[in-house]
Amino acid sequence: MFEITPTTRLRRSPFFEATVAEGVSGFSPYNHMLMPTGYGDPEGEYWRLINGASQWDVAVERQVELTGPDAGRLAQILSPRDLTKCVPGQGKYVALCNHAGTLINDPILLKLDDNRFWLSIADSNILFWARAIAAERGLNVAVIEPDVSPMAVQGPKADDVVAAVFGDWVRDLKFFWFRETQVEGIPVAVARSGWSKQGGFEIYLMDGSKGTALWNIVREAGRSWEIGPGNPNPVERIESGLLSYGGDSDDTTNPFEVRLERYVDLDVADDVIGIHPLRRIRDEGPKRHQLGITLDGDTPGGHHASWYDITVGGRKVGDMTCGTWSYRLGRNIGYALIDRACRPGDRVEVRKDGEAIGATLSDLPFL
Amino acid sequence: MFEITPTTRLRRSPFFEATVAEGVSGFSPYNHMLMPTGYGDPEGEYWRLINGASQWDVAVERQVELTGPDAGRLAQILSPRDLTKCVPGQGKYVALCNHAGTLINDPILLKLDDNRFWLSIADSNILFWARAIAAERGLNVAVIEPDVSPMAVQGPKADDVVAAVFGDWVRDLKFFWFRETQVEGIPVAVARSGWSKQGGFEIYLMDGSKGTALWNIVREAGRSWEIGPGNPNPVERIESGLLSYGGDSDDTTNPFEVRLERYVDLDVADDVIGIHPLRRIRDEGPKRHQLGITLDGDTPGGHHASWYDITVGGRKVGDMTCGTWSYRLGRNIGYALIDRACRPGDRVEVRKDGEAIGATLSDLPFL
Repeated sequence: MFEITPTTRLRRSPFFEATVAEGVSGFSPYNHMLMPTGYGDPEGEYWRLINGASQWDVAVERQVELTGPDAGRLAQILSPRDLTKCVPGQGKYVALCNHAGTLINDPILLKLDDNRFWLSIADSNILFWARAIAAERGLNVAVIEPDVSPMAVQGPKADDVVAAVFGDWVRDLKFFWFRETQVEGIPVAVARSGWSKQGGFEIYLMDGSKGTALWNIVREAGRSWEIGPGNPNPVERIESGLLSYGGDSDDTTNPFEVRLERYVDLDVADDVIGIHPLRRIRDEGPKRHQLGITLDGDTPGGHHASWYDITVGGRKVGDMTCGTWSYRLGRNIGYALIDRACRPGDRVEVRKDGEAIGATLSDLPFL
Repeated sequence: MFEITPTTRLRRSPFFEATVAEGVSGFSPYNHMLMPTGYGDPEGEYWRLINGASQWDVAVERQVELTGPDAGRLAQILSPRDLTKCVPGQGKYVALCNHAGTLINDPILLKLDDNRFWLSIADSNILFWARAIAAERGLNVAVIEPDVSPMAVQGPKADDVVAAVFGDWVRDLKFFWFRETQVEGIPVAVARSGWSKQGGFEIYLMDGSKGTALWNIVREAGRSWEIGPGNPNPVERIESGLLSYGGDSDDTTNPFEVRLERYVDLDVADDVIGIHPLRRIRDEGPKRHQLGITLDGDTPGGHHASWYDITVGGRKVGDMTCGTWSYRLGRNIGYALIDRACRPGDRVEVRKDGEAIGATLSDLPFL
C-alpha cells in the first residue's frame, strides 16, 4: 500500500533484525513502535497458527512498571477489577478506564512482587496516564517503561516448543501466570498468555540487546514442530472473539459494551478510577453491545481500514468495527458495536464504499 | 521500505483522498493517524517550500479542546508558560511537562475564548493526560477531541495563496494569532503558524467531511504561485532548528535541554505541573543541551531512523537525535542532545552502523 518513512519517533523492536531475516513484509504502528503484520503468505501464516507453532514479535506490547510501596495501591486504583487475591507470579487481564468509565486500555497486569507490577499494554499511552494519577494522588511509586519486550509463541504446538527451550515446567503454568527465568544467560519471564485462542506463551525479554539471540534460540528449538514467523492474526482473533482496543472501541466505549463485564468488579473501593460511572452504567444498561456480524456472499473481501455504518431500514444502528475473510468459515465476518436493541439473528445492512451489503448478527466468538 | 497494513486503529485524515490524488508515496504514524511524508520528489518538494508555496496535510496535529468554566485554569496548570496575558484569537507555543519537569508535548495553545482552548498537539497522548489532571483536580471542564484537522500552507508565497482564498486580512495576522472564518461554507480557523521557518499558515478545518473540498480550493487558488504538495520537511526543519518532540527528546528530556527555556516562566503559580522541578533544574543547570552537529564529508547520507551515540575519546557524551542531508549547506547535519560540557566548535565522533564518523558541534539553527 504505502511506505513507512523512517523516523526517530518510531522506536525499533529488539526483534526487528530477526523479523527482517524472516522476511517481514508489513508493519502496523503501535505504541510508537512497529509491529510486524505479515511475512508474505497470509493464509499459510494463518494455518500455521491454527495447526502448528507461530513465532511473533509483539515487543510493541510495552510494559508500564509500577514500583514502590504504593505500587499495589496504584494498580488497584487504575483497574476496576479486584486485585486483592492476585499473588506474585500471577497475571490478570484488566480493563483500564478513565474517570467517565470509558475504556482506555486492556492490558495484562503481571504481579512480580508485592511492590512491583507490569501493565503489558495495548495501543494507548498508559505511561503518561499512570504517572498523572500517581503524582496527583501523591503515591509513593515510580512509573517507568522498563527494557522488556514480549515475543509470543502461539498455536497447538507452542507448549512443545517452549518446553524444549525452558523445560517441562512451562506445561504446568496456568493461564496468565508466569515465571522469571533465563536461557543461555538471557533474562526473561515466561507467561502462558498471548493474543490468540490457539494457546501458547509470551516470553518477556528483559535485555533489549538480546532480541536476535532469543528469537533464534526459539526458532531453532521449534524446528521439529515446523515453527515459523507470524503475528497477532487479524483473522484468527476475529474468529475467536478477541478485542482490539482502539480498533473495536472508540472514545466513549465502556467495558460493558465490549464483553468485558466479567473483568469489572463493582464492589472495589470507591477510589478506583471510573467505578462510579461503571456502577451507573451497569444499573442503566449500556447503550451498545458487541456482536458478531457475517456478511452475505462468499467472495473473500479485504481487511477493513475503517469503521462502516450498520443500518436497519436506512437508520444507523451501529458500526462494523473490523472485518476479515474467515478461512475456516468461508465467510466475511467481523464485529458490530451496535444498539442494544439489535439481537443475534437480526438482519442488517453494512454501508461499505457506497454499497449496502446484507448481513446477519450473531453471538461471539465465531469459533 | 515496508508496507503499512490497514487497521481501524489508524484513523484517516480528512485530506487522505486529496493527498492520494496528489500522489502521496509515504506516511509516518502520528497520533494514531498517518501523516504524508512525501510525494516522490524529495528535493523538488524541499525547494518548493524554500522558494514557493507548499500544501501539507497535518491533520495528525489533533486538537485537545478544553471547554468550560475551568478551561483557562486547566490550560495554565498544564503549561509552565504564563498565559495570563493570552487573549482570544491568540496562540502560544507551550512546553507541556509532567510532574518531574519532563517534556511530554510541545503544542500550540489557541485561545478561542475565555472558556475554550485548543492544544494543537505533537505526537503524544495529551487527551488522556489532560483528562486525568482535570478529573483528579475536580475541575469543571470538558476535555474532548473536536472534529478539527489542520492543513498547512508554507513557504514565501504562502501569504499570497492564503490571501487569495480568504482575503488580504490574513497578511496582518501576527505569528500564532488566528481568526475563525469560512470559505464556500466550510468552517475554518486561519492561523499564522506552521512547522517551518519559511512562513505561512495553518488552516484548521472544522468539518471533517470537507477535507477534499478545502484542499482543492487552496490548490486552485495557489496555481498562480505554483503551489504543490509537501509535508513537514525533515530537511528544512533541521536546517531551521525546529524541535521534533519524541524524535529529538526522550523520557527524561526537560525544556531547558532542548532550547525551550524562553517558553518556561518560573514565576507561574505553584499548582502548574512540573514547576517545582523546573525551578530546581534551572537553578542547578540542565545536564544536557541541544546543539547542531555536522558530519565530516560531503556525500549525502540517508535520513535517520534511530539515535546514534556521540563519543569523545571513546566515551559517550550524547546522542545524535536526527540527521539529514542539507541541500543548502551541502553537508550532513543534525542535532546533538549532549553533555553540557560539550560546546559549539568541539570535535566529536558519531557511531553509526559500526562506523565512527568525525563531526563538529555548532549552535542552532543552521540557517
